Amino acid sequence: MLSNQFDPQIQNHIDQKTKPLGALGELENVAAQLAKIQSHSSGQFVNKIALSNPKVVVFAGDHGIAEQGVSIAPSAVTQQMVTNFLAGGAAINCFCRVNNIDFQVVDCGMLAATDTPSSQLILSRLGCGTEDFSTQPSMSPSQLAQGLEGGRTVVSQCVADGADLLIFGEMGIGNTSSASALLSALTDLSVAESVGLGTGINPEQLVRKTALVEQALSRFDERDVMTVLAQLGGFEIVHMVGAFLQASEQQVPVLVDGFIVSVAALAACKLEPAVREYLIFSHVSNEGAHRFVLDELNASPLLDLSMRLGEGTGAALALPLIRCAVEFYNEMVSFESAGVTV
Amino acid sequence: MLSNQFDPQIQNHIDQKTKPLGALGELENVAAQLAKIQSHSSGQFVNKIALSNPKVVVFAGDHGIAEQGVSIAPSAVTQQMVTNFLAGGAAINCFCRVNNIDFQVVDCGMLAATDTPSSQLILSRLGCGTEDFSTQPSMSPSQLAQGLEGGRTVVSQCVADGADLLIFGEMGIGNTSSASALLSALTDLSVAESVGLGTGINPEQLVRKTALVEQALSRFDERDVMTVLAQLGGFEIVHMVGAFLQASEQQVPVLVDGFIVSVAALAACKLEPAVREYLIFSHVSNEGAHRFVLDELNASPLLDLSMRLGEGTGAALALPLIRCAVEFYNEMVSFESAGVTV
Repeated sequence: MLSNQFDPQIQNHIDQKTKPLGALGELENVAAQLAKIQSHSSGQFVNKIALSNPKVVVFAGDHGIAEQGVSIAPSAVTQQMVTNFLAGGAAINCFCRVNNIDFQVVDCGMLAATDTPSSQLILSRLGCGTEDFSTQPSMSPSQLAQGLEGGRTVVSQCVADGADLLIFGEMGIGNTSSASALLSALTDLSVAESVGLGTGINPEQLVRKTALVEQALSRFDERDVMTVLAQLGGFEIVHMVGAFLQASEQQVPVLVDGFIVSVAALAACKLEPAVREYLIFSHVSNEGAHRFVLDELNASPLLDLSMRLGEGTGAALALPLIRCAVEFYNEMVSFESAGVTV
Repeated sequence: MLSNQFDPQIQNHIDQKTKPLGALGELENVAAQLAKIQSHSSGQFVNKIALSNPKVVVFAGDHGIAEQGVSIAPSAVTQQMVTNFLAGGAAINCFCRVNNIDFQVVDCGMLAATDTPSSQLILSRLGCGTEDFSTQPSMSPSQLAQGLEGGRTVVSQCVADGADLLIFGEMGIGNTSSASALLSALTDLSVAESVGLGTGINPEQLVRKTALVEQALSRFDERDVMTVLAQLGGFEIVHMVGAFLQASEQQVPVLVDGFIVSVAALAACKLEPAVREYLIFSHVSNEGAHRFVLDELNASPLLDLSMRLGEGTGAALALPLIRCAVEFYNEMVSFESAGVTV
């Protein structure tokens, strides 16, 4: 865990700025968290936070459970949307353009690999979609191990390329089913509460989705994180778990997107509690159980815009808030230097 | 009021984007509002919203009531902070730099004019601070008229310079007292509920502030907007009322900051209800009565970050959300063109 030795200096640095104490609210918490991370990693109090190279990484994968009609769209849409990402036409591309954020996609195991060549595409395929977890484990232990390692490798490469803040997003038809199943397996939340409308299924689909998740959880008794991930996880989700673990080991903060990414973060924190200190939570989505995940992680999301899109969109929207927190920490003047009466 | 004739085309344009219906939540509302404004003003459906030149305008003024000790800082701080703004050292400067927003300050009547020459400073002084409104009208009817006109002139000039979205902010020691008094005079909200902690006064100051506002409201019986503004308003607040009126006449949207700006918006809407359609509400601040003002205006703020700083900071933080809404409306591809299965 991060030591608290720099906390008083960091708080004092913030409190000397030309504003009433605490008047920047949540932005002050973000600045303090980043300053703490970077002070810890450099071994000395930092009065300038470095944030010049944020990167969005969208993890994509397909889910066998999608064959059961638990989504508004067929699995083919995962690949179609990845193609859309690579062409720059999706919401996440729009937000990355406006906010000047690097963007990459990881194919963690879509039904089929895309044939669109792109420098923005990373291949880390664990298979052609997971098995249907309502009837069998979604992946083998070796696929899980490979996925965790694949996520770690993606983060290592991003950091080697200079990334100093990461944003994880996801794309995968059927992945709210997987995330809800994981959530109920890892916490005491009932399936009725963990399963939601995803991107907008109808009431009949919601009944089916809930029953399938119940069925999946009754297939096995173990509730340790690794078993649960192999039984219920998605290829993109286990990649994100590995990615969170690696980011915290390399002391790089991660801006967390919506429900599915948050469930991956929860799994990572259960494997390694130190991960939590590197996480900033961007938004609470319209998926009902997201609030529960955030509460489990003792997280205050920055945005609440009734979104339910995924792709990292909520986090990409929140990045300017992080940059503003950094800028005020780094550049806003003190009462003394500005000659403002305290 | 804006006609609804373009609404179906605008909604259809949004619904064809490669995302589940409604999945971008509040951003879809923002995009629709801007598209409606610009379709109305151009007389035809717009499939590209123009937003290339937003500008922050901070209105500054001093308040006679500040002599009564209702703030955490003396009136001299208004001018000191304006000097800080012009030197680029304040929170609003940081946020404008990060988010690439033009910035101007209007001296609406500080205790004394600043001697810092700057192209970012506009002089529109109504006097050397208002009178103490707890014992007498804060300004004369002619000062009010001059202030409304001054606000209109500032907006006209911004629009002439090419501004296509305006952000109003304020600076003025004592101005939450004025805003709370205005709010209770213009609505049925009790003084006990309209008066809050401002930037952080102590419980004794809160009692004094509440009593002084009560005293002010008992001084006169008229509750028409013009009387109320002259009796209780601040120079920066009446400028903002004029600025809101002018922006709506020129069909330019305004991103509204916190409590004080919102009260000015409420007054403007009471004078001219059409103003409301041009307003986007950036955030809800920590000032307790701000939520009430937003409800009166039927407004859903985009951010809730427990801020209480003013200066236009909440609105400057929200601008990237507006830009992202515009970008998805303008550039995100449709299901058809992306070849994504509906």
